[in-house]
Amino acid sequence: MSVLVVGSIALDDIKTPLEEHSEMLGGSASYGCVAASFYSPVNLVGIVGEDFPDEHVDFFRRRNVDLTGLKIVPGKTFRWSGEYMWDLNIRETRSVALNVFEHFTPTLPPQYQETPIVLLANIAPDLQHHVLDQVRFPRFVIADTMDLWINIARQRLVELLARIHLLILNDGEARQLTSETSLIKAARKLRDMGPQYVAVKKGEHGCLLFGAENQFFSCPAYPLEDIHDPTGAGDTFAGGLAGYLAKNGAEVEFSALRRGVVHGSVLASYCVEAFSLERLKTLTADQIACRYEMFRRLSQFDVE
Amino acid sequence: MSVLVVGSIALDDIKTPLEEHSEMLGGSASYGCVAASFYSPVNLVGIVGEDFPDEHVDFFRRRNVDLTGLKIVPGKTFRWSGEYMWDLNIRETRSVALNVFEHFTPTLPPQYQETPIVLLANIAPDLQHHVLDQVRFPRFVIADTMDLWINIARQRLVELLARIHLLILNDGEARQLTSETSLIKAARKLRDMGPQYVAVKKGEHGCLLFGAENQFFSCPAYPLEDIHDPTGAGDTFAGGLAGYLAKNGAEVEFSALRRGVVHGSVLASYCVEAFSLERLKTLTADQIACRYEMFRRLSQFDVE
Repeated sequence: MSVLVVGSIALDDIKTPLEEHSEMLGGSASYGCVAASFYSPVNLVGIVGEDFPDEHVDFFRRRNVDLTGLKIVPGKTFRWSGEYMWDLNIRETRSVALNVFEHFTPTLPPQYQETPIVLLANIAPDLQHHVLDQVRFPRFVIADTMDLWINIARQRLVELLARIHLLILNDGEARQLTSETSLIKAARKLRDMGPQYVAVKKGEHGCLLFGAENQFFSCPAYPLEDIHDPTGAGDTFAGGLAGYLAKNGAEVEFSALRRGVVHGSVLASYCVEAFSLERLKTLTADQIACRYEMFRRLSQFDVE
Repeated sequence: MSVLVVGSIALDDIKTPLEEHSEMLGGSASYGCVAASFYSPVNLVGIVGEDFPDEHVDFFRRRNVDLTGLKIVPGKTFRWSGEYMWDLNIRETRSVALNVFEHFTPTLPPQYQETPIVLLANIAPDLQHHVLDQVRFPRFVIADTMDLWINIARQRLVELLARIHLLILNDGEARQLTSETSLIKAARKLRDMGPQYVAVKKGEHGCLLFGAENQFFSCPAYPLEDIHDPTGAGDTFAGGLAGYLAKNGAEVEFSALRRGVVHGSVLASYCVEAFSLERLKTLTADQIACRYEMFRRLSQFDVE
């Protein structure tokens, strides 16, 4: 099965305490579609300006991403600039220029309209609605979001929750959206608002997946010694998860979601090993399988 | 096999945003010995004043804790008073009165001197050294510590590390003691200072166990909706782990340590469900087995 990925495609300037890089490939859809492409065919929906380097388009193409839904228009590509502190969990946005992304209201190519798995990567809820409106009979819809949308587009985000199967957000955002400090209670409230499943990302502490009352999964974080650039880790997680579900096919059951969350975590753990999508460019299926097994080992213990 | 537990025995005044209780049974040895007693015989080393209520002594006795090493002397029992904020991870010590504990330099009863598993619960490193000096051929020595000792007795703590097999501390303390922000690097430095294994507690995010280069275990936290009193969770964790290792017997291998860390986490998860040791008073072996299985379910996923 295929995955439809809609989100931002950006050129990022990123600064960490140790390195600084500019005009790097970024954006939620870039990370999401490349991550998903390790598992299944991907239909990309996005927009870039004429300044968008050919090499990035070629990279998407090499990953077998369908680019029928990628608009290249006059003007400048969306730009984001951010800086990380020594605690790489803390990020400061230095500047944002939406550019061609500002008035993006895509029309889905006909061959995209029945994509069974939909990943609404982190973008404005309005745009997530607009794309979802055009998908017929989606089997499983995943939406990622962030604090910005909780702050400035809360109502549209809440409306979206009723239309999706899985919501992905981080722990602070889950608390912010529900006014609950307990993540258990927050996840229950979020599920009451629509999605059957909620994945709460906890950065270096892994991820919690919540389903029906007795469905709960705690995925550890991979113990990385050096994280070079946390940018896109969440988008990569969402893309890997969506891609895995598409590959797994048919019904999405909790056991498949558990494996999907691990695959998303595997890809995110690779993503942060280098700036931008650089590490994903050289990643192989064998490396994914190897780290998946490492995740299994680091969380296993015997029946007693 | 038996466990020797040395640490503080206290009467605690504890305030949370929702409740306040005074003169509750507390202290690292109280939590540690009761937790260990669910798995193996325990030899307790500690001191209390004549004001120490008989009911607490009776409780230890009912748990089959050997009290030959418990000194009851004229004067007042060690008292601690603390307050938790809405984020129950943040605690403020309001007052400490060492009382009879101040000059405690125990002489081990002869029958304690060959206890194979030793738990040096959270107390001053000097006292931990003093007790360890008197144990002949210990098979496995576990030491718990806290930021206070890193601040005021760092050198003695560092000397202790060379004498123990497993160090238990929380993430902030691991970083403080090593000046490393990465827990992987911090654990490696700590292991270079002596202990073969390091367990890093992360509160609501579970626990990481580090051994030799390829020995790593990530234990999730049990998803509790309501935590009533976090006091003693770390001491209970250490006690459950030590007790399990004693029950498991013979050689302490990494697979046994994994299970021990889960058992410690199971007991700690029950401990925080009520104030003081109240929940441990009614805890049963069946409940421990049930939650152990829950821990297994919440962290398992299939081979893929």
